[in-house]
Amino acid sequence: MKLQFLGTGAGVPSKERNVSAIALDLTQERGTAWLFDCGEATQHQILHTKIRPRKIDKIFITHLHGDHIYGLPGFLSSRSFQDGITPVTIYGPKGIAEYISVSLEVSRTYLRYPLHFHEVEEGLLFEDNQFYVYCKKLEHAIDSYGYRIIEKDSPGELLAEKLKLNGIQPGPIYQQIKENETTILADGNTIKRADFIGPNKKGRVVSIIGDTRYVAELASFIKDSDALVHEATFAQDEDEMAYNYYHSTTKQAAELARAGDVNQLLLTHISSRYQGESIDQLEAEATVIFPNTKIAADLLEWEINQK
Amino acid sequence: MKLQFLGTGAGVPSKERNVSAIALDLTQERGTAWLFDCGEATQHQILHTKIRPRKIDKIFITHLHGDHIYGLPGFLSSRSFQDGITPVTIYGPKGIAEYISVSLEVSRTYLRYPLHFHEVEEGLLFEDNQFYVYCKKLEHAIDSYGYRIIEKDSPGELLAEKLKLNGIQPGPIYQQIKENETTILADGNTIKRADFIGPNKKGRVVSIIGDTRYVAELASFIKDSDALVHEATFAQDEDEMAYNYYHSTTKQAAELARAGDVNQLLLTHISSRYQGESIDQLEAEATVIFPNTKIAADLLEWEINQK
Repeated sequence: MKLQFLGTGAGVPSKERNVSAIALDLTQERGTAWLFDCGEATQHQILHTKIRPRKIDKIFITHLHGDHIYGLPGFLSSRSFQDGITPVTIYGPKGIAEYISVSLEVSRTYLRYPLHFHEVEEGLLFEDNQFYVYCKKLEHAIDSYGYRIIEKDSPGELLAEKLKLNGIQPGPIYQQIKENETTILADGNTIKRADFIGPNKKGRVVSIIGDTRYVAELASFIKDSDALVHEATFAQDEDEMAYNYYHSTTKQAAELARAGDVNQLLLTHISSRYQGESIDQLEAEATVIFPNTKIAADLLEWEINQK
Repeated sequence: MKLQFLGTGAGVPSKERNVSAIALDLTQERGTAWLFDCGEATQHQILHTKIRPRKIDKIFITHLHGDHIYGLPGFLSSRSFQDGITPVTIYGPKGIAEYISVSLEVSRTYLRYPLHFHEVEEGLLFEDNQFYVYCKKLEHAIDSYGYRIIEKDSPGELLAEKLKLNGIQPGPIYQQIKENETTILADGNTIKRADFIGPNKKGRVVSIIGDTRYVAELASFIKDSDALVHEATFAQDEDEMAYNYYHSTTKQAAELARAGDVNQLLLTHISSRYQGESIDQLEAEATVIFPNTKIAADLLEWEINQK
């Protein structure tokens, strides 16, 4: 479970930072990847990573501003051209389906895979046997959402040494013991899985928050995340500007991370006014409040670690 | 009058070539630039050139396939953000206005400048005191157009030596003589401009052709161009493939250049199947038929020269 930052800038692309997009690489967990926002040239950024467009099966859009969605028609078209045939579901605010369907229609683009849309509302958005995704409304000039992705706990490791001590030798039977609550062996003995398995492996949690003003109540939504990805469009002394433009400062993001007691804070959506040393300055401001902070950069790969 | 190639690939962006866009840099002639097609990440490519988005006041779209238009919403938005306040006119096939208006509307993008649309038809598309632009329908899977841009002839140089020989000394009077058919001097003498001006300076002609099959009749449309920009999606031996996909080969483009007796052929829209040495091979195939051929590359700047 890795974050692959694709675009970490705000509003307009620069040579240093592209507009917003992040991939959540779930290759290890489920052989796919999820995309969070898709600003223009996201597919170009992907060319420089290990992510394969055809492996992306879910796209979550935080809000409909152009720097978060203008890469979608091109990404979807190229995915089709590059042998993507499995379905894609796009989760996002109302309007995203119209934008995509007009873009594909006008350009006479026919996708080779089914495309589904899911209009987001607060609450549980998605659940399967591995993951939950929750959604929370933020405070921005237009409807903007944050996503909390929760990996479900998984069964612990099989205690091989203990099995051997009980006279059960390694073989296909180990897998059967792991997969079933109770197994009756060839010798008639009954094995309860619970006796031969370690403690549950706790799933990881990552929260990816769209453009927003500082909202103190968000602390409960991002609570205990292993990684929090939050915008920091402005430096700490620009809180008035941040408020007026519906964005956050470094300090505000760090305060939220501290209040939510997360493990790691990753700051993104950095205004192009900050370059070189002023980026170090932004990081320094945030680490005063929340030490485990990093300013993300385009193409940064980040393994999500638990506390 | 320079061509600035921004994207010279076909269909899908690669690390080597972006999707289609060309700027015609008219800084010298009128302080502006015109854009021909605007594939995704055209604004990103522009960051690496001397072109300023706010100086682009006309955009000509050859056809509506995604690799030629998906960069438009982002380009238009960023132009506004970067102090573009002068009007922009987009010339293109029916559908372009709907695509742009839905993209801007859904993303709540408000431009700081007026945006005009002009649906293209064959014939004279635009004329002012400096330029004509003509338009011609091609043969592609969807409506696709070629543009012929004609710089009007301009008055020749003032013959300063001849004026001096006639006792007229340099000064503001020279400009007046140049700008008026007849000037009566302070000493009562009458000066006819025609007697003191060199021959008309012939304007240049550039033809920029969208995606198309080989169409022999196009020779008259591109006739005597100083530069012909034509697609060559495929190598010469792929003429069946080219026909089936409504594209052209190197050889076909070169034959057209020869038939039209142009000065320079610039090939673009190169399929990503051709890389490195096979690009040299493409160029070699074309130069056999039309020696003055160059395969364009992303960010190539090309001064348009007359024969």
